[in-house]
Amino acid sequence: MARGRSEKVLSRRYDGDSLRRTPDEVVVEEPMAIHLDDTLVATTMRTPGHDFELAVGFCHTEGLLGGAPVESCRYCATGSAVETGFNVVSVDTGGRAPEPTPRLGPATSSCGLCGTADLDEVMVRLDPIPTIAVPPLEVCLAAPDRLRRAQGLFDTTGSVHAAAAFDAAGELLVVREDIGRHNAVDKVVGRLLLDARLPAAGLGLVVSGRASFEMVQKAWAAGFGVLVSVSGPSSLAVEAAQRAGLVLLAFARDGHGTLYAPTDGDPFALAAKVANESIEAAG
Amino acid sequence: MARGRSEKVLSRRYDGDSLRRTPDEVVVEEPMAIHLDDTLVATTMRTPGHDFELAVGFCHTEGLLGGAPVESCRYCATGSAVETGFNVVSVDTGGRAPEPTPRLGPATSSCGLCGTADLDEVMVRLDPIPTIAVPPLEVCLAAPDRLRRAQGLFDTTGSVHAAAAFDAAGELLVVREDIGRHNAVDKVVGRLLLDARLPAAGLGLVVSGRASFEMVQKAWAAGFGVLVSVSGPSSLAVEAAQRAGLVLLAFARDGHGTLYAPTDGDPFALAAKVANESIEAAG
Repeated sequence: MARGRSEKVLSRRYDGDSLRRTPDEVVVEEPMAIHLDDTLVATTMRTPGHDFELAVGFCHTEGLLGGAPVESCRYCATGSAVETGFNVVSVDTGGRAPEPTPRLGPATSSCGLCGTADLDEVMVRLDPIPTIAVPPLEVCLAAPDRLRRAQGLFDTTGSVHAAAAFDAAGELLVVREDIGRHNAVDKVVGRLLLDARLPAAGLGLVVSGRASFEMVQKAWAAGFGVLVSVSGPSSLAVEAAQRAGLVLLAFARDGHGTLYAPTDGDPFALAAKVANESIEAAG
Repeated sequence: MARGRSEKVLSRRYDGDSLRRTPDEVVVEEPMAIHLDDTLVATTMRTPGHDFELAVGFCHTEGLLGGAPVESCRYCATGSAVETGFNVVSVDTGGRAPEPTPRLGPATSSCGLCGTADLDEVMVRLDPIPTIAVPPLEVCLAAPDRLRRAQGLFDTTGSVHAAAAFDAAGELLVVREDIGRHNAVDKVVGRLLLDARLPAAGLGLVVSGRASFEMVQKAWAAGFGVLVSVSGPSSLAVEAAQRAGLVLLAFARDGHGTLYAPTDGDPFALAAKVANESIEAAG
C-alpha cells in the first residue's frame, strides 16, 4: 500500500531545558519510478498522491511525449515487495512517443531536464512562445497568497512545496503540493493535460518557492503565459524566460513584485489591451 | 569564463501602479558535469564557485569513491565553446574508485541517490553509524541563526540555499551557498574531504531548508553526528535518520527545536556525559 501524503511520527520538542513528546506529522517522501512505453525514464522522490498526473506531467514538461497522446496510465507491480506496487507508474502512448534516449549519466538535484553541461544546448530548446494574453497584474500579484491559503498539507506538516494554475479571474484551477518543487509543477501540468487543457494559454503558473531554470522550462513547455514565484529567480531562469517569451514575475508578495522578463514593455498593460479589444469585439 | 556567483540583471519593480527599473542581482545557476575517472557520473544545476569541492563532495556522499583517495581534480575543456570550459569537472582517483554503474534512467529532482523506486533498496545502504559525540544542544539550536548571518549571497540575491559544518563550540568551519540544496551540502563535505577532515565525527551539519531523505543520506555518508534543519523533515528522512543512528533536529529556531531521531534517550545529554567523561579522564 502506498502511504498517505502526511504521516504521524514520534518526535520530541525541546523547549528551553525540557524534552517532551509531542504529536507530530511530517510530509511523506517516497521514490516513484516513471516508465514511458515500458522504458524507465525517471525516478523521483515525491509525496504520494496524484501519481498519474505527476508521471504524465513529467513526460510532457520534459518533452518526452513529442506530442503523442497518452493512451493510459497505470501502476505496475514489478517489485517483489507489496509496498513497491504503487511506486512504479507507466505512461503508455502505444509506442507513439519518440523512443527515450538514455542519458550518459544521471541528472541530479535541480537538473531533471538537460543531462548536459552545455549552456547553448540547454537554451536552444526554448523556442519563443507567441505573445499571449496573461492574467491581469493584480491577479498575478495575489496568486501566491491564494496558493498559500489553499495549501492543506503545509498547514499539517510545515514544509512542502506547492504550485497552481490560475486564470484571469484569479481562480486556482489546480493546486498541488509535493516535497519536490518540480513534482508540484508536473502534477499541475499533468492534470491540465489529462483534462485536455494544454497548452495553458491565458493561464498563469504560481510556485511557492524560487524560480529556477527548470521551473521556467516546465512553464514554457506547458504553454503558460506567466510564471509567478514567491522567491527570487536564478540567472538562468531570467535568461530562459526572456528567450522563451515567458513573463517572469518574482518576489510577488503583498501586492508588489519584480518583473524579470520581458525587459521592455509592460506585458500586463498588453494583456489589459487585449482583454479590452476582446470586449470591444464582442460588444 | 565561468560567471560569478551572482549577476546583475535588468528588472523592473511593480509598486502599486508604477513599473520602475531597479538595480537587481540574482543568484547564478549553471549546469556542471562531474566526471569520475573519465566517466560522466552527474550533471547538476549549480551556482559556480567551489566547483572542485562540489565534484569531490558529490562523489563522496553518493558513495562513488568507495574509499579511494582523490588524486586530482581539474576543469576539462571538452566543449567547443569557451564558456563550457569551466562547466566540466573531473575527479581522478587513478582508477581506484569502483567503476560507476550506469543507472537505467536519469534520477530527477530530489533523487540524486537512488535511481530505484524500491524503498528497501534505498534504506539498506544506511548502516548505522556508531554512537558519537555531537555538539551540545544549545549550539545545535543556535546553528541556523549563525548560518543565516554567514550567508553573503542570500543578502545579495534573496534566494539561495546554504549548509555549514559546525563544531562543539558552535564555530562554522565551512559555509557554502548554492541554488541547489544538495550542492551546498556537497560543497561542505568536499571541503572537509580535501582537508582530510572526514569522517566528520563530533561535528554537526546545518542546512537552511528542509531535511529530506537525501540530506540525511549525505550527512550520514560524511559521518556527521547530527543534522540540524531550519524547516521540517520528510517521513523518509525521519526513517533514515532513525535507522542510521543520526541525530535529526528540525524546526530549529529561536532556541527551540524538534527531535525526530533518535526516538528515545536524550542524545545531547549523552554528548554532555561523554564530554564530562573525557574531562574527567583528562583531569
